[in-house]
Amino acid sequence: MRYLTSGESHGPQLTTIIEGLPAGMPLHDTDINNELARRQKGYGRGRRMQIEKDTVEIVGGIRHGYTLGSPVGLVVENNDWKHWTKIMGQEPLAPNEEDEVKRKVTRPRPGHADLNGAIKYGHRDMRNVLERSSARETTVRVAAGAVAKKLLKELGINIASHVTEIGGVASSVKAYDSLENLKEITENSPVRCLDPEAEKKMMNAIDEAKQQGDSIGGVVEVIAEGMPSGVGSYVHYDRKLDAKLASAIMSINAFKGVEIGIGFEAASKPGSEVHDEILWTEERGYYRRTNRLGGLEGGMTTGMPIIVRGVMKPIPTLYKPLQSVDIETKEPFTASIERSDSCAVPAAAVVAENVVAWELASAIVEQFYSDRFETLKELVEQQRTFAREF
Amino acid sequence: MRYLTSGESHGPQLTTIIEGLPAGMPLHDTDINNELARRQKGYGRGRRMQIEKDTVEIVGGIRHGYTLGSPVGLVVENNDWKHWTKIMGQEPLAPNEEDEVKRKVTRPRPGHADLNGAIKYGHRDMRNVLERSSARETTVRVAAGAVAKKLLKELGINIASHVTEIGGVASSVKAYDSLENLKEITENSPVRCLDPEAEKKMMNAIDEAKQQGDSIGGVVEVIAEGMPSGVGSYVHYDRKLDAKLASAIMSINAFKGVEIGIGFEAASKPGSEVHDEILWTEERGYYRRTNRLGGLEGGMTTGMPIIVRGVMKPIPTLYKPLQSVDIETKEPFTASIERSDSCAVPAAAVVAENVVAWELASAIVEQFYSDRFETLKELVEQQRTFAREF
Amino acid sequence: MRYLTSGESHGPQLTTIIEGLPAGMPLHDTDINNELARRQKGYGRGRRMQIEKDTVEIVGGIRHGYTLGSPVGLVVENNDWKHWTKIMGQEPLAPNEEDEVKRKVTRPRPGHADLNGAIKYGHRDMRNVLERSSARETTVRVAAGAVAKKLLKELGINIASHVTEIGGVASSVKAYDSLENLKEITENSPVRCLDPEAEKKMMNAIDEAKQQGDSIGGVVEVIAEGMPSGVGSYVHYDRKLDAKLASAIMSINAFKGVEIGIGFEAASKPGSEVHDEILWTEERGYYRRTNRLGGLEGGMTTGMPIIVRGVMKPIPTLYKPLQSVDIETKEPFTASIERSDSCAVPAAAVVAENVVAWELASAIVEQFYSDRFETLKELVEQQRTFAREF
Amino acid sequence: MRYLTSGESHGPQLTTIIEGLPAGMPLHDTDINNELARRQKGYGRGRRMQIEKDTVEIVGGIRHGYTLGSPVGLVVENNDWKHWTKIMGQEPLAPNEEDEVKRKVTRPRPGHADLNGAIKYGHRDMRNVLERSSARETTVRVAAGAVAKKLLKELGINIASHVTEIGGVASSVKAYDSLENLKEITENSPVRCLDPEAEKKMMNAIDEAKQQGDSIGGVVEVIAEGMPSGVGSYVHYDRKLDAKLASAIMSINAFKGVEIGIGFEAASKPGSEVHDEILWTEERGYYRRTNRLGGLEGGMTTGMPIIVRGVMKPIPTLYKPLQSVDIETKEPFTASIERSDSCAVPAAAVVAENVVAWELASAIVEQFYSDRFETLKELVEQQRTFAREF
Repeated sequence: MRYLTSGESHGPQLTTIIEGLPAGMPLHDTDINNELARRQKGYGRGRRMQIEKDTVEIVGGIRHGYTLGSPVGLVVENNDWKHWTKIMGQEPLAPNEEDEVKRKVTRPRPGHADLNGAIKYGHRDMRNVLERSSARETTVRVAAGAVAKKLLKELGINIASHVTEIGGVASSVKAYDSLENLKEITENSPVRCLDPEAEKKMMNAIDEAKQQGDSIGGVVEVIAEGMPSGVGSYVHYDRKLDAKLASAIMSINAFKGVEIGIGFEAASKPGSEVHDEILWTEERGYYRRTNRLGGLEGGMTTGMPIIVRGVMKPIPTLYKPLQSVDIETKEPFTASIERSDSCAVPAAAVVAENVVAWELASAIVEQFYSDRFETLKELVEQQRTFAREF
Repeated sequence: MRYLTSGESHGPQLTTIIEGLPAGMPLHDTDINNELARRQKGYGRGRRMQIEKDTVEIVGGIRHGYTLGSPVGLVVENNDWKHWTKIMGQEPLAPNEEDEVKRKVTRPRPGHADLNGAIKYGHRDMRNVLERSSARETTVRVAAGAVAKKLLKELGINIASHVTEIGGVASSVKAYDSLENLKEITENSPVRCLDPEAEKKMMNAIDEAKQQGDSIGGVVEVIAEGMPSGVGSYVHYDRKLDAKLASAIMSINAFKGVEIGIGFEAASKPGSEVHDEILWTEERGYYRRTNRLGGLEGGMTTGMPIIVRGVMKPIPTLYKPLQSVDIETKEPFTASIERSDSCAVPAAAVVAENVVAWELASAIVEQFYSDRFETLKELVEQQRTFAREF
Repeated sequence: MRYLTSGESHGPQLTTIIEGLPAGMPLHDTDINNELARRQKGYGRGRRMQIEKDTVEIVGGIRHGYTLGSPVGLVVENNDWKHWTKIMGQEPLAPNEEDEVKRKVTRPRPGHADLNGAIKYGHRDMRNVLERSSARETTVRVAAGAVAKKLLKELGINIASHVTEIGGVASSVKAYDSLENLKEITENSPVRCLDPEAEKKMMNAIDEAKQQGDSIGGVVEVIAEGMPSGVGSYVHYDRKLDAKLASAIMSINAFKGVEIGIGFEAASKPGSEVHDEILWTEERGYYRRTNRLGGLEGGMTTGMPIIVRGVMKPIPTLYKPLQSVDIETKEPFTASIERSDSCAVPAAAVVAENVVAWELASAIVEQFYSDRFETLKELVEQQRTFAREF
Repeated sequence: MRYLTSGESHGPQLTTIIEGLPAGMPLHDTDINNELARRQKGYGRGRRMQIEKDTVEIVGGIRHGYTLGSPVGLVVENNDWKHWTKIMGQEPLAPNEEDEVKRKVTRPRPGHADLNGAIKYGHRDMRNVLERSSARETTVRVAAGAVAKKLLKELGINIASHVTEIGGVASSVKAYDSLENLKEITENSPVRCLDPEAEKKMMNAIDEAKQQGDSIGGVVEVIAEGMPSGVGSYVHYDRKLDAKLASAIMSINAFKGVEIGIGFEAASKPGSEVHDEILWTEERGYYRRTNRLGGLEGGMTTGMPIIVRGVMKPIPTLYKPLQSVDIETKEPFTASIERSDSCAVPAAAVVAENVVAWELASAIVEQFYSDRFETLKELVEQQRTFAREF
């Protein structure tokens, strides 16, 4: 499976084309809209989230509720576009319009793509950069991920996430009865946290950051249950599933780290406390006593839950000014503010879920490929049986 | 650029083919052999490192010291192959030979690819898995990386690494005068550590782990200086350089996490202490006051040093036994030992350097592509000027 | 550069996303609309061409007349969609609606994708196949090609085409004064033919085929002038430019053959009459006395005009019935007619031009890549100088 | 599946790495050596074919007669290498050696990659080009193809070829009882021709060409029987199987055209005589009355035999001189002769078979993927049943 996205933050729409889905898979716009809505929630978001109530329009590849096998086209309109038709329009500007309407940006914001992107593409107006580098693009990545999530769900693979840290406040609750139970709690938590104590402190930290014109980041954890064992591969470095997950997480705007299972803790523990012992029963087949390696060994799934964490840095747009330089005048200035989220970690958890869903679904579709979804479903089930009886 | 590798741990040889190098780049086998030798050093390695003194044979793509533009073929022979011709040979075995020579493995080692790989490919003899999943394969990944490193060096981009933690012992020295200076220290440290105090403690920790039949992991940091700004891209998720680096690090055997710049620390700091202020002088152009983001913003280089860290779990092969299950008898057993490194973190630092080199070189070659290395070199230099004068 | 397309023939829209264009390249919707209009012309087309007046909407990647470097999103609406919302809608049908509105297709047409596609994807309703396998999809391939064509034009590379045969009538005019002159003639010919005699006979052949409820195919020739020499490569089989052109032409609906230069004639001529002698003058550099190899030697451009021909089979939808089998009843029937073009060769010439443009532009962008179009332009010019002075 | 190749014509060896084969597929070096031997036969070959008796060495991915799932490494040594170690060695030359041993080539041969390749990569010594652009590289393409062929054979898919034209002499025998019968005849024909009359004339034509210091080309036809229907796809242009076959054929050295089924004849026939009527019987399922479309409709297999033809131009190295220009002196000269095959069409038929085998096997492996060859085999069989019962 592969997908491309297009669209600027204040352009007419965001678009994605997903190629490589099998035919006959059930898919409705509500499957996607649910994820888009989840992405827009979360304590600490600013005005933009109110302007846009994202809904998807399916423009290809689905008929009467099922995939056709042809590429799926998805469109999410930018409701604000009507106010930006001149500024972001495709038509050349008349010379006199340039100053009036262009809203040229010459002041790069530290921590954003502005300056590097301008130097790369030769843009003297950094609006040409920020319109695309904006996290607005994650909307269609979530849309594509929602399709993947649906595919996984049909195969009995479930994905959820929770926030484990915000602004230095760590969640102390790591256990949950079931993924359903985890979802219930996190969907009702403004910061998607399992720990009610930490939840309050996180919200306070967000409020405080906002008050001080600052912003805070955090850590999100994605969990996937139900993956059959042996997905991914050790035979070539670019087929390792853990490498693909790392890439997916790191490609989310503002993410600076990723770990699987115990992750960085592995540096301070002896091997005997890191590896997961292998057990076997007739009903269950092979399984692990523990899951410190987060469901991945040798670039492949073990059959245990996949556990991936990523760290998001604080949103770089601050009221609290950081120094920068105007690229026209070369004069220093203190960085301008384009918007005002003080914390986007809860939303990022939803994005992380969906990019992980994409990688897992891609790996599944590659490994148990069939043009017909029903057959693919059977093949995954057969793999489960094969593993159990191995 | 792209490369494939083949070869099993006890097969005749490891092979790699590198496609996409420009023509006219100087390259000698010594460039590669140096890196291969560095990979074989390090306190805590076992017997295998003595058996194999890896040297490369160039079998394509180089003539009289320069790349031809055609694919570069590299071979590293396994010196031990002569003892394994029957066990690992390509010829079918006679029925009576099966038991004698096959050295069949039916006992999966926890933390290895053995069991998942066997289930995936349907191997009842897990030697079929472990021969390829072995870290021996990193030899040719280092060979490919050494070619990339040479390319970068010619462009004035230097890469080095140091070990920042082993078995819970952290290095407290983070500063260094220059990359040359860092290299000098680490090349003379048995654990590739900048901090002489920590070095001793790390070596003690390794000794102790060995004594207890245990193993320990650690954290390595790779630094690349000299990358022009604007390499990578924000325009599409799969073109982000940070995502590619994350994938590269996570694809190294036994790595469970990766971070860029301050990484996971970003979860506990306010935005004002995370982002790097932008400064400018006429001679230097734009630069950052600090480098907390590790030289990468918006999926692109900032021109500051690239800083990437990865965590390696302890080697899963222990004298201290972990429980597992024989796949034939389904009887539990305590996991066997195939080899005896108690810590491979120093070697892993060299591997990490080289896989990072590959990603950086690939990004450079893609972005400043020319069929002729001399032109590519000029284009990179022009980019530096362009950025400085922007 | 890469692009994906989505959209069904009677769905809401056709969409394409083009990724990898440099920034700062001029692009207007008229550049694309011109090509879309050219594709809709041609003697022998049926009703559909009157219904749809295709125009493109740019939904990403362009601002104020220039590419941004971000992916370009293009949409072409299907004007007929309003009549097909139920039949082709994404919503599941109510059970009672199924028979009424579904317009289920169970009778595969010989020569179409219907039957193979149904078997592949498991569609019992072959509308699920024909909606995507329809040549309607070439609309967005032309849109993508138009972008490529614009890029080439900016670099001084021009592409045109003419029809050399229709239904057994061959054009006897092979010469033309200039590509501009060729364009003038073919744009005014209803069958895009250089030979006025043949033109009349071709039109008669089309009329006759129509009268007899039959259809005819033909041969189109695409010419590209201005390509610098050395584009493509011999170093790896999948980098050869001739192979890419062959793939592009053969991927057009109904094409069954492709040749470069003298093509199949090369089977009956001695080497001394096939190869092009190499000449040199100070002003011009190297050139060939003849151009029998169609501008390509060793998988690379020679600097001479690129000449590629493709053969299109007659459109398989005929009034004249061919036998087939209903997949539900297994009863034989004589194939139904969905539409009535009796010859689509002139339009196919436009499609061929545009897919060739895509391949040439991709090869150029890969080989002289720069993020900034102005630099890319300079690099192509430098290559021309380098070749001249070589 | 993917593969890379490396190696120069007079370098130490040719190498290929094949990645993506399922595990458990039987494979022996004899499977490959047979194809290598077939490639070296054929009336009209020169001295080189006597020097090299190509045999493969398997250096990875196979154990005890079966694929491991890991990449397959294949090596074919150049027996002549011992005479070329200085001229083609990797070590830099001492200044005084340059003139002596370098065998510098400054005279580009018309019809070869020499000049374009030199301009592309900036090589003043065109030996740097011709060593790689040589058809010697097809040796490892055949090796990779032989692996694919073996895979197909295990699935009941057989591939063969015959020569239909050489130097203007066309074979008039198009029918054959079975593919086995065709193979028997062609393996015993020095020009791989089914028509004994034409065979003689072709050999005469080769002799005559040789006498005159000229060379001749021809047309080869590849036939594949047993492909299940629905392989390939219409849903995206780059997934069409006919496009992939066209690319594969055109990428063979010296090929200038490709056609499928009746190919270019389709330009002169009415639709009613081009398309294949669809029939059905309970035992056989759907099939076509004729096979004018060569087993491919809508980019997919129909289940009928695949028929692909390609045209090879005469080998460009002639005793009969063509004019060219020395790149150092800019003096005209008449092109030198490096070797003396006067016709390589019979060998090219073998190459064509093997590159077609690669594409078909890749398409099969992608579409019916399983990590375990036994399962893949079952899936292909299930597809045959599904198609028959559809």
